[in-house]
Amino acid sequence: MPGTTTTGQASIMDVSVDCVIFGFDEQKLKVLIIDQKQMVKSMPVAHLQSALPGDLVRQEESFDHAAQRVLKELTNLSGIYLKQFHAFGDPYRVRMKKDQEWLNALRENPERRVVTIGYYSLVNMVDYKPKASSFAGKARWVDVYEIPSMAFDHNQIVDKALDMLRHELIADNIGFELLPEKFTLSQLQHLYEIVLDKKMDKRNFRKNVLKMENLQPLDEKQKGVLHKPAQLYQYQRKK
Amino acid sequence: MPGTTTTGQASIMDVSVDCVIFGFDEQKLKVLIIDQKQMVKSMPVAHLQSALPGDLVRQEESFDHAAQRVLKELTNLSGIYLKQFHAFGDPYRVRMKKDQEWLNALRENPERRVVTIGYYSLVNMVDYKPKASSFAGKARWVDVYEIPSMAFDHNQIVDKALDMLRHELIADNIGFELLPEKFTLSQLQHLYEIVLDKKMDKRNFRKNVLKMENLQPLDEKQKGVLHKPAQLYQYQRKK
Repeated sequence: MPGTTTTGQASIMDVSVDCVIFGFDEQKLKVLIIDQKQMVKSMPVAHLQSALPGDLVRQEESFDHAAQRVLKELTNLSGIYLKQFHAFGDPYRVRMKKDQEWLNALRENPERRVVTIGYYSLVNMVDYKPKASSFAGKARWVDVYEIPSMAFDHNQIVDKALDMLRHELIADNIGFELLPEKFTLSQLQHLYEIVLDKKMDKRNFRKNVLKMENLQPLDEKQKGVLHKPAQLYQYQRKK
Repeated sequence: MPGTTTTGQASIMDVSVDCVIFGFDEQKLKVLIIDQKQMVKSMPVAHLQSALPGDLVRQEESFDHAAQRVLKELTNLSGIYLKQFHAFGDPYRVRMKKDQEWLNALRENPERRVVTIGYYSLVNMVDYKPKASSFAGKARWVDVYEIPSMAFDHNQIVDKALDMLRHELIADNIGFELLPEKFTLSQLQHLYEIVLDKKMDKRNFRKNVLKMENLQPLDEKQKGVLHKPAQLYQYQRKK
C-alpha cells in the first residue's frame, strides 16, 4: 500500500469523554462521582467501582456534545458549562485487572485502547442535584479530599483537573464565580484555603488580595451576624 | 450483546498528534510548518499543501511520546518541551475534499475519523534549525500573521494555540522565556505587542509591568547602543 512505510500505521482506538464536576457549597470542595450499577447478573457486585461520569464518544459526535450527553445520561445534570482540559492517552489506562469485568460486560470491544478527553466544570453545588440513570447506580458529591479509589485512571484524571482548578484560581481568579455577589474577605480566604488545601495567613492574604484591581469594597457590611459585621466586597468581572 | 443498549456503541477512530511550535526571534512571532512532499507519482503537485508537523499515534504509544517522535521525524527538531493544549474532535475535520488525495495516498484507512491531540511550544527561534524529512518536503518558519491556508483544520489549530499563548503570556508571564536574561522594558513591550498583535501605550505598559513582583531593575544599563542606554531588568522565575 503506497505510503504506509512513512505514515498511516494501523491503530484502532475508542475515544471517550470523562467529566470532572467540582462543586463548592461555601464549606467544602466536592466532586461528582457515580457508582457503577450491576448491568449483568454474572457480574459480582463486589467488583463494581465508583467512577467519573464518562462514556464513549459516538462515531459522528463532537467531544463537547458527547460530554454534555454523557453527563446528562448518567447524572441528569445539564446546562453546565464544560471545559475540555486534557486528553488522557496512556495505552494501558483501561487494561488493569480491576476494570476488565466491567468492560467485558459493557463494551463491544473491551480489549481496545481507549483515549479519553477530560472535561471539567466548577459549579455552586447547591444548584445541582444529581440523579443517577443508565449504568450509574448512584450519582453523588464526595469531598475532593476523600475520593474513593475509582475505575480506570479516574483518580488521576481528578488530580489533573484539580491541578488545573488551582492554577486557574490563582491565575484567572475563577473562584469569584462560587461566592455570593457580595462577600467578605473571610469567605474569599476560606474558598482559597479549601481549593488550595492549605491554611493562609490572614494578613498576607488580605494584603495580596486587596491589590487586585477588580476587587471593590462596598459601602456595606454584613447583616444578621452575631460577631462584628465585616466589610463586604464585590468582584467586577472583566468583559 | 449485554449492555450495548446503554453504552459501548461501536466507534472507530484514529488518533494523531499535531505540533504548533511558536518561535520568537526578538522581532517576529513565527510558527513551524511543513510542506507536504509528493509521496506517490499519481498525486498532482498542485494538490500538496502546507501543514503542521503531525501524524498518527501508534497503537501502544503515549501522546507525549508520539508528539516528540513525529516532530523529530518531520522536522528533525528534538529536545523541545511540548505541552498538550487541546484535543480536536470535529467528526468532519479530515473529510474535506482538499485533503482526500493526500489521505488516500498515505493512510491505510483514509475515510476514518481522526481525532488529533494538539501540542504546543514556544522557543527562541534562533536555536532551532528545522530540516525536513519523511513526508515533509520542506520545514520552515512562517510569520504567525502570514500563515498560508493549510491541510485539514490546521489553521484552526494554530488559532487555538495562539489564543492559549496569549492567555499564558498575560496570566503566567511565559514571555520572559523568550527574552535575554537581561532586557529592557522596550524589548519586553515589543514581545507583548507582537504576541498580542496590538500596539500598547508606553506609559501604561510600564506602569503595569513595574507592578510585577518578580521583575527586578538591575544596577546596569544597555551597552553598545547609539541611543541613550536604557535600564536593564531581569525576571526572577518562581520556584
